Amino acid sequence: MTEITHPNIKDGWFIESQALWPGQAMTLKVKKVIHHEKSKFQDVLVFESTDYGMVLALDGVIQSTERDEFSYQEMITHLPMNSHPCPKDVLVIGGGDGGVLREIVKHDCVESVTLCDIDESVIKVSKQYFPHLACGFDHPKVKVHIGDGFQFLKDKVNSFDVIITDSSDPVGPAESLYKEDYFKLMFNALKEGGVLSTQGECMWLHLDLIKKVLNDCKKIYPVATYAYTTIPTYPSGQIGFMLCSKNPETNFAKPLRKWSEEFEKEHLRYYNAAVHEASMIYPQFLKNALEN
Amino acid sequence: MTEITHPNIKDGWFIESQALWPGQAMTLKVKKVIHHEKSKFQDVLVFESTDYGMVLALDGVIQSTERDEFSYQEMITHLPMNSHPCPKDVLVIGGGDGGVLREIVKHDCVESVTLCDIDESVIKVSKQYFPHLACGFDHPKVKVHIGDGFQFLKDKVNSFDVIITDSSDPVGPAESLYKEDYFKLMFNALKEGGVLSTQGECMWLHLDLIKKVLNDCKKIYPVATYAYTTIPTYPSGQIGFMLCSKNPETNFAKPLRKWSEEFEKEHLRYYNAAVHEASMIYPQFLKNALEN
Repeated sequence: MTEITHPNIKDGWFIESQALWPGQAMTLKVKKVIHHEKSKFQDVLVFESTDYGMVLALDGVIQSTERDEFSYQEMITHLPMNSHPCPKDVLVIGGGDGGVLREIVKHDCVESVTLCDIDESVIKVSKQYFPHLACGFDHPKVKVHIGDGFQFLKDKVNSFDVIITDSSDPVGPAESLYKEDYFKLMFNALKEGGVLSTQGECMWLHLDLIKKVLNDCKKIYPVATYAYTTIPTYPSGQIGFMLCSKNPETNFAKPLRKWSEEFEKEHLRYYNAAVHEASMIYPQFLKNALEN
Repeated sequence: MTEITHPNIKDGWFIESQALWPGQAMTLKVKKVIHHEKSKFQDVLVFESTDYGMVLALDGVIQSTERDEFSYQEMITHLPMNSHPCPKDVLVIGGGDGGVLREIVKHDCVESVTLCDIDESVIKVSKQYFPHLACGFDHPKVKVHIGDGFQFLKDKVNSFDVIITDSSDPVGPAESLYKEDYFKLMFNALKEGGVLSTQGECMWLHLDLIKKVLNDCKKIYPVATYAYTTIPTYPSGQIGFMLCSKNPETNFAKPLRKWSEEFEKEHLRYYNAAVHEASMIYPQFLKNALEN
């Protein structure tokens, strides 16, 4: 059996592509390359790392490692979910690894979850190699639709309490998901009082993009804000989220619903009610950039 | 003139040494190698990076980059300084780049600052290539002592309001600065009500070390806690601080002194009073580890 090679792997190390963060690259030591394919939309790579467990990379960019994925999945999910009084119908755009689904169904109030990912290969690969993420697909409340998120939303009106956009970066298949038009489509698809979160990039790398998207959101939604979390294997060790609400009373900085401390301890690894609040407290340079 | 070579630089990229964080390595693109020497204590490398400005690496580990150093310098300094009612006499152990000095003298109440670093080469290199850090040495309140911090503290009793240990990791010259005995020496050197901070490593990498040091501190000080900040070029994108106080009333989570919002906006880039509080709010996995 021949060993799988990949342009991002050299001398036994995976070196992350760096189109969006020039001059820096995270590297992880590879134990074994497990899977590589060119799907219809992107380069899909799965490898086992020496210290971060199983790793999924799309177009050479790390999407998920077994060791730290929980930070991203919990935060992008529970920040909007706990900012809605009673989310029953939830939509995930992207999120083909299933991790966000796994988090959504921790909320007992949820009645239906729809996931729309453009790339079926990601779902297949996750089900095969990332059972800790793909377990989200097993829940009876979950329905899957393969297709373009932008197109999917076009005929949806007043349909969802929460929409979570778990996308890759704004180059490649996810490019349209950072545009003002996409946030307008989500506005129409959300029910009255609906809220959303999207992958919102890193304050240390993409302040200008964050400012632009936040300003776009504020034109459409009465409430829009930025939150962030720490995660070692995303560029610069942090990632952010855009949070928007159709309800002018929404205060994302204070969770509307909280779990008990016992639940947090048993079922969560990153998110808790206090972390929810802290995720919207800005380092001074971010405050200067976003509050002027 | 021949180009300077260095074992951590390959094909124009600096690859960080990874003895303490196996299987992962941050890499930065090198524009020009500026300086390399083996000092009496460590390997000292200065290079200009393409996107992070001037970089200082000791024993192959990034200590400071021009682009993100402010997060570390401000947090290790202002967390303890603003937790003391009126710090007049301040000691820095390590910190030979001068960045912590630059932050300390932002506090008008300070009357004298002593810096004790073991390696004069770091101070020289900083004065030559890192003026934005070394400006801290220019202040009339600052005195410099070259020597071992552990030895320096041995005959100091009741001398300092605040001690800041800005050290490298617990291998090499800084090893003794993570030991229980070192925290005992600082206890004696602090005045009544004195507080301290030390470089406290990363929650994503060194939970066991953090737990051990925190437990050691709690044996010696009535108040001890852990705080953290985000910083892209430290391993995994975060670094933490140990905070201890001789005053049982100290509540590190609420700054005792605050600057005005105008001061924060003009003179700080990371720290502000709200960030001070948020730096001690723990992700659930850290909470589970430290609060049991």
